[in-house]
Order: sequence, then C-alpha cells, then structure tokens
Amino acid sequence: MATPTRIGLAGLAVMGQNLALNIAEKGFPISVYNRSTSKVDETVERAKKEGNLPLYGFHDPESFVLSIQKPRVIIILVKAGSPVDQTIKTLSAYMEKGDCIIDGGNEWYENTERREKEMAEKGLLYLGMGVSGGEEGARNGPSLMPGGSFEAYKNIEDILLKVAAQVDSGPCVTYIGEGGSGNFVKMVHNGIEYGDMQLIAEAYDVLKSVGKLSNDELQQVFSDWNKGELLSFLIEITADIFGIKDDKGDGYLVDKVLDKTGMKGTGKWTVQQAAELSVAAPTIASSLDSRFLSGLKDERVQAAKVFKASGVSDVLVDQSVGKNQLIDDVRKALYASKICSYAQGMNLIRAKSVEKGWDLKLGELARIWKGGCIIRAIFLDRIKGAYDRNPDLANLLVDEEFAKEMVERQSAWRRVVCLAINSGISTPGMSSSLAYFDSYRRERLPANLIQAQRDYFGAHTYERIDVPGSYHTEWFKIARQSKN
Amino acid sequence: MATPTRIGLAGLAVMGQNLALNIAEKGFPISVYNRSTSKVDETVERAKKEGNLPLYGFHDPESFVLSIQKPRVIIILVKAGSPVDQTIKTLSAYMEKGDCIIDGGNEWYENTERREKEMAEKGLLYLGMGVSGGEEGARNGPSLMPGGSFEAYKNIEDILLKVAAQVDSGPCVTYIGEGGSGNFVKMVHNGIEYGDMQLIAEAYDVLKSVGKLSNDELQQVFSDWNKGELLSFLIEITADIFGIKDDKGDGYLVDKVLDKTGMKGTGKWTVQQAAELSVAAPTIASSLDSRFLSGLKDERVQAAKVFKASGVSDVLVDQSVGKNQLIDDVRKALYASKICSYAQGMNLIRAKSVEKGWDLKLGELARIWKGGCIIRAIFLDRIKGAYDRNPDLANLLVDEEFAKEMVERQSAWRRVVCLAINSGISTPGMSSSLAYFDSYRRERLPANLIQAQRDYFGAHTYERIDVPGSYHTEWFKIARQSKN
Repeated sequence: MATPTRIGLAGLAVMGQNLALNIAEKGFPISVYNRSTSKVDETVERAKKEGNLPLYGFHDPESFVLSIQKPRVIIILVKAGSPVDQTIKTLSAYMEKGDCIIDGGNEWYENTERREKEMAEKGLLYLGMGVSGGEEGARNGPSLMPGGSFEAYKNIEDILLKVAAQVDSGPCVTYIGEGGSGNFVKMVHNGIEYGDMQLIAEAYDVLKSVGKLSNDELQQVFSDWNKGELLSFLIEITADIFGIKDDKGDGYLVDKVLDKTGMKGTGKWTVQQAAELSVAAPTIASSLDSRFLSGLKDERVQAAKVFKASGVSDVLVDQSVGKNQLIDDVRKALYASKICSYAQGMNLIRAKSVEKGWDLKLGELARIWKGGCIIRAIFLDRIKGAYDRNPDLANLLVDEEFAKEMVERQSAWRRVVCLAINSGISTPGMSSSLAYFDSYRRERLPANLIQAQRDYFGAHTYERIDVPGSYHTEWFKIARQSKN
Repeated sequence: MATPTRIGLAGLAVMGQNLALNIAEKGFPISVYNRSTSKVDETVERAKKEGNLPLYGFHDPESFVLSIQKPRVIIILVKAGSPVDQTIKTLSAYMEKGDCIIDGGNEWYENTERREKEMAEKGLLYLGMGVSGGEEGARNGPSLMPGGSFEAYKNIEDILLKVAAQVDSGPCVTYIGEGGSGNFVKMVHNGIEYGDMQLIAEAYDVLKSVGKLSNDELQQVFSDWNKGELLSFLIEITADIFGIKDDKGDGYLVDKVLDKTGMKGTGKWTVQQAAELSVAAPTIASSLDSRFLSGLKDERVQAAKVFKASGVSDVLVDQSVGKNQLIDDVRKALYASKICSYAQGMNLIRAKSVEKGWDLKLGELARIWKGGCIIRAIFLDRIKGAYDRNPDLANLLVDEEFAKEMVERQSAWRRVVCLAINSGISTPGMSSSLAYFDSYRRERLPANLIQAQRDYFGAHTYERIDVPGSYHTEWFKIARQSKN
C-alpha cells in the first residue's frame, strides 16, 4: 500500500476478522492488527480469497497505527475488561490529537466512560460501540450502537452507514448518545435476547412435553410462526435447529445437546441494572435464573429422583390437548410475553437515559434492531410505531395497538401457563410476564398490606388513599388493647 | 458516674435508643452519644423512666469515648454509607489500640471490609453487626449477626448473649464469620423478609379478591394460620392489621393505606448479589419487582383504564370457590412458596460463603433467626433440622422432610396459582416459586434448545448428553444445504 488506509481494526478473533472484511468489502481500505500475528496473516488471506478486498495486515502496533489516515480511527475488538485497557495503552502510544478508538466489545458502560475521560486527557476521542449479529452479522451487516464522542461518530459515520445491516427503513446504525450509552443499549439488547430465547424454549417445552410434538412437527410450527407476527431471526434458526439430524448417531441433534446454558455477563448486568434503577424486569430476570438452574444439572437429576420417589414425575399428568388449539395458544402466549419483555427492556433504557441525561430515542433503537442483530424481528416495527405515536409512552403495554394485541391474546396466554403448571412444566418467562401484565394493569395491588406491615414493625409510615400526607399508626398498641 | 462504663453506643435514633436501653437493662453500664445532643438527653430521660437503668449521656465525643472501660467497645447506629465513615472518624480520634467499633446498621458488606482494614491500620478492631427486630426487637431482644474481628466479638460476647432475643435453643446471636459476613447475612435476611411479605400479600389478595373474604374473616384466617406451620411474627402482625379500624373514618385502616411499598436497599442488594453469584432467587426478585410496580400507582391507574375499556377488568371473572377449600389451598401455597424462598436465600448465603471463604453455618443462621428478628418463625426449626441432618444439603427442597411437605402441598399450590391467573390476579411470588420448584426438580430442561441457538449464532459450543467434550456444529450451513 502506498496511501494511508481509511480505518484500522485491532483484535482479529471471529468478530474482528468478519467486521474488518465487511468494512473492506464496502470499499474502505482497512489496516488490521492482532497481538498474535498468525491471526493477521489469516485475515489477510481471507481478504484475498473473498475478493481481493483492500485489507492490509501489520505485525507491530506502530506501523499499524501509522498506516491509517488522520484523524485516525481504530476499532478494537478484544475481550472486555483489562484486555481493552491493555490494547488502548499499546495503540494510543502512537496516536495523535484528534485520533479515535472505538471499542466494539460487550463492555460494561462505566468502563467506557472511564476510558473516554482518560483518552480526553490525551486529546484522543473514544466511542463504545455495541455490535450485534454474531459472526454472520459482523461479516454481512451488523446492528451498530455507537455511543460516546459525537465528533468521533461523525468522522466515521459514512463507514458505519455502509457497514451496518440495511433494512427498508435504512441502515441499522444511529448515534446512540453520550458516554457509555452505546454499551448500555447493547447490554439491554442482550437482556432482551435472553428473554426471547427463554420464551422460545418454554414454547418448545410445552409443545414437546405436553403437546407431544415431534421435532418434525416443531420445525413446521416454527416455520409457520416465522411467516406471521413472530417473524424473527431467533424463530427462524429455531425452525432450522429442529430439522438437523445428529451426525454422531440416530435422531435429531437438538435432543443430544446437553440442557446447560452458558452465558457471558450482559444478562446479569441487565438484571442488576434493573434492580438499581427500580425497573421491574421479571421476564429478563427469569431467563437469567433459568440459565443458572440449567447449570445445576447434577442437582436437578438428584432432585428429580427425590420427587419421583414420592410419585411426582417430571411431567405430572398427560393432559389431553387439541394439538392445533395448543399450537395456536402457545403462539399467542409467546407473543404476549414478548411484548412484556420488550416493555421491560425499553423502560430500563429510558430509566438509565433519564438518570444519565442521555436523551435516548426508544423508537430509533427499535429501528436499528430491525436488521443485523440477534433480536431482529418484524415485531420491532410495531415498537417503533408505538414510540412514533407517543415518544413518552409510559409502557408498551398501554400503546393502543399493543393493548389490543394483549387483550386478544390474554385468554390463550392464561390457558398455556395453567396447562404448564398443571403439567408440572415450568414456564418462568411466560408466567412472570403474565404476572407483570396483571400487576401493571391493576389499579389496586395488595401492597397496602406490605406498607402496613412495614409501618407496624419499623415505623416506616404510609400514605392514605383518601387524604394526602404521611402517617404512622401504633398498630401494636392498638392490637394489644383490643385483645385485652 | 465514677467508674468507667462497660460499653458505648453512638447514634440515638429509634434503633440506637432502644438497643442502648436494652443493654443497660441487662446490667451493663453504657455511655451514649449523639451528634444532636437533644437525643442524648431524651435517652437519659427514658433510662430513668424505664427503671433507673445504668445509662450515661455525653454531649461531646471525647468525654464519651474516655468514659468507657478499655479495651473500649462502641456500637454505632447511624445511617449506612458516609455517616458511618464520619462517625468512625470522629470517635476513633480518641480511641486506643485494641479498642473496637461495631457498626449495627444495614451496611453494604464491602464497606465493612474496607473499614475493617482501615481500622486495623490504626490498631483498632471492627465488627459489622446485623441487627434485626425493629424498634421492639432492639429494646427487648433483637437477632444479632456480628461479623468481622473474632477477637472483638469475644470482648463483648457476654453482652450480646444477654441482649439478644432468648429462645428455647438459646440466645439469638452467634459469631457469623470474618469480614462483612454479618452484614451479608443480614442483607439476605432482609431479602427473605421481602419474600415473606410478598407471599403474605398475595395470599391476602387471593382470599380477598377471589374468595371475597372480609377483613374480619381475614383476621380469623391469619390468626388460625398462626397456630400451625406458618406461626411467625409476620403472620401474627398481619392478623393484627386486619383487626384495626380506621381512626379517620369508617371501615378498616388497611383499606385506606395506599398500595405503594417503600424500600431501603437491602432487597435490591440481595437480588443483585444473587445475579452476581449465579444463584436463582426468583421469589425474592419478584418481591422486589412487586415493590417497584406498586410504586407506579399513577401508571397502574392509567393502565387499568386502558384495559377496562377493552373489557378486561381488574378481577377477570368471579369464579365460584369454596371458601374453606380456598383458605386451605392458599395456606399450603404460601407455605410451599416460603420453602422455595428460604432455599434461595440459604443458597445465596452459601455461594457467598464459598466465594469469600467465610465458612458460614446455615443451620446456625436459622437458629439465630428464631427469635427477635422480623422473619422469626417456627418454620426456622425445620430449616435448622434440615442442615443438622445434612450440612451439605444442596437445596432445602430435597431435604427429606421438606420434600415430603412440598409433595403434600403441590396440588393445592398449583390450584391457587391457576385460580389467580384465571382471575387476572397476579401472584408473582407464588408463581415464580412454583416455577423454581418445577425447574429444580426437572431432570431435563429445554435449555438444550437455548444452547443450540447460542452455538448457531455465536459458535458458543455445546456439550452432549451421550459423550463428553465440547462441540460446535455449522447449523446454518447444514440447514441451508437441506433447504436447497
């Protein structure tokens, strides 16, 4: 190469390689670097094979940085935490005022805010950019959630607009907001993804364990669902999964997969942030708890034995259910639960936005999730529509269209959850979503009793429904008097 | 006073005053101090009135500290966070090597560990001591959870043994463990308390909204329950509450209390720690979420209107239920849910104990919660029994006695949750407990599908049920091939 490249990318694991190739393919000459140099050569090789893309590899950080046109922009895709700090240290040694680093990993938003400040002290710019879509998305068009320096965003907006997934409403990228907002939004995106996956798993469980559907039937059901309101990447791949035979033996691969779910931290953060911000997010929390419980395989095997010995089997009773009615009910239960889950995620983002003064646009987030990312779905159009109608919507549930959809689905939803309960099948995601719905739409909750208890034993005071003010009652004394 | 006192107490709000009087009444001369001096005089006055107790007030920190015999022990009861740091700073200026400060507030355990280190640098000892029982408990016998310096604990063990609540199995205090373990255990105690209160509120809601029980009937039901397996402080005060008339108008006070529940942070920490430690704690989490949702009173009123307009009323249908059967079912559902909640809390404590090397004794914790504290209950004997039988019990649910109790109650429990669902009444605590039970006792969960999805889009790999090892499948490629 004779002329400087337009951008650099450091960290060439799966995501990094694919994103670099994507950028090069869109016509932006890119320099790439990795600490272990074999990854550099591997990426250069792929760039050649995939169409002689303008991608240039470097084995040392200095020549890598110096190969990029000023003001330099370098995307880093390394493990979150201290590897990011280490990479910043290595690269920034050669960077100059006005240059910018973009962290594309799943980083804790506060780390991004700390680094942005540290970089600013050196005159450098910083962005924390959520990247969703996995390997395939990174290569062909991810959903991008860049937050931090607006100036830095503007420097590479042309690249991001081309690299991101393209859908009918435009490229799946927008400037999210200041500070760590890009990471925060990506974190909640992942929390919502946890919820979606859990709800699909519960639908599978009810259809399989109660409805006795075969894998072939399940593949058909999910394929059918993928033509309607549930159309989405996760439903599509679920249909695919049910069709894949085991290459190591008889039957289907999904039945041979161990029922233990891994996780990497963003779901946990989402649940912790929800608690921190006083936002109820039970659907997302139940998906995290389900992953924890899935991990206790040995304990579960043991517990199943203990209870089977008392006559409580895995599936309590074989209930006779009409298959078609059940499939239809489960679809409705899944959709209604999904609305609750997204309502929780969106309200969590809003609460943080208010706390931090980020001024995030919820409808815009729904728009950039429409393509590229794991939760991409036709359903996001409806969410965008709801926030277009009313940007200050208190909760997705009370949007007129969603409210109508909830009303139409609630009977089926209740049937599915009760069927699961009576079968001894747990549907933590669907049932906690339903409890969320029934709590949120309830004018009067039994919280009056709890507040009375708190005032009884801790003099925490209470408000009244009829007159304003804060009251304390000597419950114990009065109760004792009336007993004597 | 001519001779030095045995102990000091600083911070004379409700809890501090009562604990100081309790200590004095047990025969230990005590010095007291408060920044605003009127509280000092008030406490001295109370000590006179309540039997000329050996309690001595001081208006300045120096003479307060110097009035105590060496090695000095001072309990502080001020607001958690920086007021504790401030108080330590003020008092420690006059303290000498070997002296000790005991923080009796609801402090975040890591703050205690930081302070213990800072104090050690000055040769001072430190304890973080959970104190439960509210105003009444502090005065007449709280449950005490001291953690930190064992040496410091030994210096005042004789006082704590007398001051704590006394039950058949001894005083409700034990040395919890090192570092912030006392605060951590108290935090989980409070999380369990949230769960208990939520479950009682749901029982109330079902009995009132579905069973149409009057307050008089509710008082009778809870009084009856307090004679059996549910015998506990919280059930007792609930019965009391239903008997109290409104002093501002007609009817019962509980019906005039606004359905908004306050909170102070320990429930939130419990939920966040559960996520941090990969422990499923859905019952406790649902009680926190319910408090959050209770706070959205205006939104709920609005949402109720939206859904009522579509014909979905607060209580969906009036279902005919036999009152006695319902009461019996709800009692069983409450008890079974409670077992799940305590199982979660205990496992959270164990997970932390393992992480920190605290070596906490779960059975001992159940024992010291038997008296004085808010969750005191006959039920804790059963928990102690379970850990006596097997200190390494993986989960309370699989203890032989609890397992038997769960089996006996599960049908009633399922009936109650389904009845609530069909009535549109949310029972988030009971239904998440049931989902916890049904997940934990399930040999095979649908987590295999989630892990297959994760491998499909993120190459996260999976294990197999039949052969060891970690596998990755090119799901997308195979699915595409079979489609072509």
